[in-house]
Amino acid sequence: MQSDNPSAAILVIGDEILSGRTREGNAHHLAQVLTATGINLCEMRVVSDEQDQIVDAVRALDSSLGGKYDLLFTSGGIGPTHDDITADAVALAHGTLAEVNDAARAILQERCDRMGTELTPGRLRMARIPIGARLIENAVSGAPGFSIGNTHVMAGVPEVFRGMVAWLIPQLASGRPVQSQSIEVRRGESEVAEDLKQLAASFADLSLGSYPFHDEKGWGTNLVVRGLDPERVEAAMTALKQRLAL
Amino acid sequence: MQSDNPSAAILVIGDEILSGRTREGNAHHLAQVLTATGINLCEMRVVSDEQDQIVDAVRALDSSLGGKYDLLFTSGGIGPTHDDITADAVALAHGTLAEVNDAARAILQERCDRMGTELTPGRLRMARIPIGARLIENAVSGAPGFSIGNTHVMAGVPEVFRGMVAWLIPQLASGRPVQSQSIEVRRGESEVAEDLKQLAASFADLSLGSYPFHDEKGWGTNLVVRGLDPERVEAAMTALKQRLAL
Repeated sequence: MQSDNPSAAILVIGDEILSGRTREGNAHHLAQVLTATGINLCEMRVVSDEQDQIVDAVRALDSSLGGKYDLLFTSGGIGPTHDDITADAVALAHGTLAEVNDAARAILQERCDRMGTELTPGRLRMARIPIGARLIENAVSGAPGFSIGNTHVMAGVPEVFRGMVAWLIPQLASGRPVQSQSIEVRRGESEVAEDLKQLAASFADLSLGSYPFHDEKGWGTNLVVRGLDPERVEAAMTALKQRLAL
Repeated sequence: MQSDNPSAAILVIGDEILSGRTREGNAHHLAQVLTATGINLCEMRVVSDEQDQIVDAVRALDSSLGGKYDLLFTSGGIGPTHDDITADAVALAHGTLAEVNDAARAILQERCDRMGTELTPGRLRMARIPIGARLIENAVSGAPGFSIGNTHVMAGVPEVFRGMVAWLIPQLASGRPVQSQSIEVRRGESEVAEDLKQLAASFADLSLGSYPFHDEKGWGTNLVVRGLDPERVEAAMTALKQRLAL
């Protein structure tokens, strides 16, 4: 599928995903938001809470550092504990340092005052932001994310991540949202492969995908047509139905 | 956490994950199996059904090609349709070509004979295997996966993927399974951060993680201790409970 839409990657940081303890969900949520917005998600990565791993991935994925994509979104590792090293690692990748940010500290102090708690060293750790970064608002629990270069750093807690995504994405330059149509057929993928291949040749501007599944009724396949032009998507789906005599 | 266990990465191939249409689950399943087996999963990636993306990722992740990890597992892109290009891309990464494999063809032919269907060009496409690769058994739907170098290529359909994992993993050299203990506390992560940090300094051979969550009762944190020696894990959990007066 050809597209002038911005390209993007998601980097999830956290041992709990790699150990299988937690099933990743933030990248899935953001993938849906990006598709609806017109940002072309090209890659997801999950790495552990280790500085080298994070630095290498940020440099490989953020175009402002010579990496592959226009935008990089991260999730995880910006909390108050010793294994939350994302702010430092992202700062290092961008050739700077993380230090306590006055605006972030004020947000945390205001929240602590309101809740009658103390701004402990652990909480203050969440105000450590790379020098030169812009804050990402956290309406859920206060502690902000941040943007530096083309890297946008958000929290791992799902509610907080979603809040940050809702605040951030509308502010980014985006392209034309991807249109899609899908149809479920009760046939194996092999039985539709040839028709799909021939159709793909006639609609090179679109992406035609087939996704087999198995349920209590046996095998079936979901056929999905995606593209930027809704009329072309409609035309391809019509042609597909004719070919398959649906 | 120090470990002599083999290191591993998972590469998921499929536009449907990146578009947000499908939530990834195979990598999560395999992560749990690897942790229980004693294989140290260090990275997950998801890339689109594009040859360059797959080739680059395989070369970056498979140590037999100069990549980062002892083992690489892939999921997706080995079906019968035009967008199933994993066999060709993995072959290319390993400096060889995919062609119809006699043993794989025999498996598919036997299955077609049994089901009274024909071995169509689409189905035969699933017998295309890189030259020199070893087959991975598919007890669910016949069409095999394969292993070449340190890359192990499996299907994307969850039932088939799980069947292949169950067949493959016991045959791989593995290490000591990771032991873990966890405890849930009804406190914010900030309130346990300092205790956790001090404990981590005394148990440098273990991995101590904290995973905040939010539910109808408010904020809580799961604290997880992981390591290879069950007695050390037990000792750290006991010390943690004492520190937190649990």
